[in-house]
Amino acid sequence: MTLEFEIINRYFKKNTNVPLGIGDDAALINKNKREFWAISQDTLNNDTHFSSDTPPVELGWKALAVNVSDIYAMGGKPNYALLSISLNQHNEKWLKGFSQGLHACAKKYGVEIIGGDTTRGATSISITIIGSVFKKNVLKRDAAKVEDDIWVTGKIGLAAIGLDCVKKKIAMKDGLKKTFIEYLNKPQPSNIYSLQAKKLFHSAIDISDGLIADLSHILKSSGVSAEIFSNQLPVHPWTKKNEAYHYALYGGDDYQLILTAAQKNRSQIELLAKQEKIKLTCIGKITNGKKLKVFDTHGIPLKNLNKGFLHFDK
Amino acid sequence: MTLEFEIINRYFKKNTNVPLGIGDDAALINKNKREFWAISQDTLNNDTHFSSDTPPVELGWKALAVNVSDIYAMGGKPNYALLSISLNQHNEKWLKGFSQGLHACAKKYGVEIIGGDTTRGATSISITIIGSVFKKNVLKRDAAKVEDDIWVTGKIGLAAIGLDCVKKKIAMKDGLKKTFIEYLNKPQPSNIYSLQAKKLFHSAIDISDGLIADLSHILKSSGVSAEIFSNQLPVHPWTKKNEAYHYALYGGDDYQLILTAAQKNRSQIELLAKQEKIKLTCIGKITNGKKLKVFDTHGIPLKNLNKGFLHFDK
Repeated sequence: MTLEFEIINRYFKKNTNVPLGIGDDAALINKNKREFWAISQDTLNNDTHFSSDTPPVELGWKALAVNVSDIYAMGGKPNYALLSISLNQHNEKWLKGFSQGLHACAKKYGVEIIGGDTTRGATSISITIIGSVFKKNVLKRDAAKVEDDIWVTGKIGLAAIGLDCVKKKIAMKDGLKKTFIEYLNKPQPSNIYSLQAKKLFHSAIDISDGLIADLSHILKSSGVSAEIFSNQLPVHPWTKKNEAYHYALYGGDDYQLILTAAQKNRSQIELLAKQEKIKLTCIGKITNGKKLKVFDTHGIPLKNLNKGFLHFDK
Repeated sequence: MTLEFEIINRYFKKNTNVPLGIGDDAALINKNKREFWAISQDTLNNDTHFSSDTPPVELGWKALAVNVSDIYAMGGKPNYALLSISLNQHNEKWLKGFSQGLHACAKKYGVEIIGGDTTRGATSISITIIGSVFKKNVLKRDAAKVEDDIWVTGKIGLAAIGLDCVKKKIAMKDGLKKTFIEYLNKPQPSNIYSLQAKKLFHSAIDISDGLIADLSHILKSSGVSAEIFSNQLPVHPWTKKNEAYHYALYGGDDYQLILTAAQKNRSQIELLAKQEKIKLTCIGKITNGKKLKVFDTHGIPLKNLNKGFLHFDK
């Protein structure tokens, strides 16, 4: 578990009367007999989650997209968002770009911006998202079952490659670099709402800190373990060619989903995903083992798994 | 109007399908036939809203209290809050103090903390609050009527005196200084829910940027003007003695409410306020004039009214 979770659990988690409080992708409160409101708040800070060079239009997109991802991870669909934006100075051009990106993302994912607040401070964007989810379709972290398939949406590890391109840690052709940086700056959460309407999955989480780190949350909450096969990971051809699977295993910022589902649902999931044009890949399975096992492309278990991004280094 | 509102209106306000979107103390979405959910998000940033010296226990209190105030300003009562906290480093002592203050405030105002998020970045706290309000009791900014009395809760201008004490701009005895700084760091929003259950008021706003600045929002939204009498303002004896009424007129951070109500409700308001132990003071009235008039303690209108705190200086 990352230190962030320790902090939240130690200092801020208390017993509540809501159906689901701190500790999942979103909190749940009652909406009506059949539905919950799912509510989540995520913050992006300058120099931690983006650089000053990040184009504001992409930042506006990303700030909302990372929140949309939390609602999808609960099996819900997003409805409303509130925005709190801190800026060191009033920058008309920046604000214009940011709002364009934000509204484009809002339009794509069907979100209405219903509240806003601007303050002076280090550049930071905090968005609260409110979505609705049918009670019977809720996906929590603690419901993975032994023998479940483990699925991921979209492609993973591309944002982390993009980040290394931005940081000039790796070099590649401009066209390819642009692709990866776009995955970093303009994540495209996968909408699994139509699939979950058929209650195909048991549990889910979105990948913000990296596949292994976020999968570990499911495993810990569900009291299970898993086996992951690197050669099944939905990666970019560059990753395969360079055998750079660590990006897919440990890289953050994907904002794709990890889902677990009973094996008997496999063909139905594949069929529906094809119909709905959602990329879904089975990457392993839930086990009753003691330890998460990740097999490299030669079928050899990796040693010393990295647990992903920490928000606070001790 | 402050520049903050211009920014929000220009870049982030769009038509929505919710009962109330951007532009009031909280947004409203439907809860059930009789009630709305009122939702608001407020951020406090280091060096803008608090200093690094602010005791974390008081900051934890304040971060939630300023949001509670927004719900009261809608005529509602607070239910839930989500917390997003950015810190430059993991500081166990700070977190412990902050969480103590936060939970103490949550307990006092009946709020459950249902979501949380910590990230690395410049110290900043963004809280989203969710409250419920009966549709018939909603207090908006745009419903002040000509001839309404203007009321304020509690005492005003004390937090701004506290801020000048912290900044060493004014000097006074330690005991008095402590009092004012406590008003700054530990605001105590006034709960008018029991009064509004009888639908006594027309409109409301909370005082975050200063009496004149925030009253101006009501006036602009309602298309009315007002007359305010300095000698009626509920101020501290120090303010009277030093004729320092500017603190009460322009000082921010009070987190008390400005309310307007028909004159015919005056005696009922006074009676109920006494029963409920809520301090309420009539400070002036709504007019159909062109311009807000503020009379000094000698009955002379002030010239060149300051419009209060701007989050962004142009």
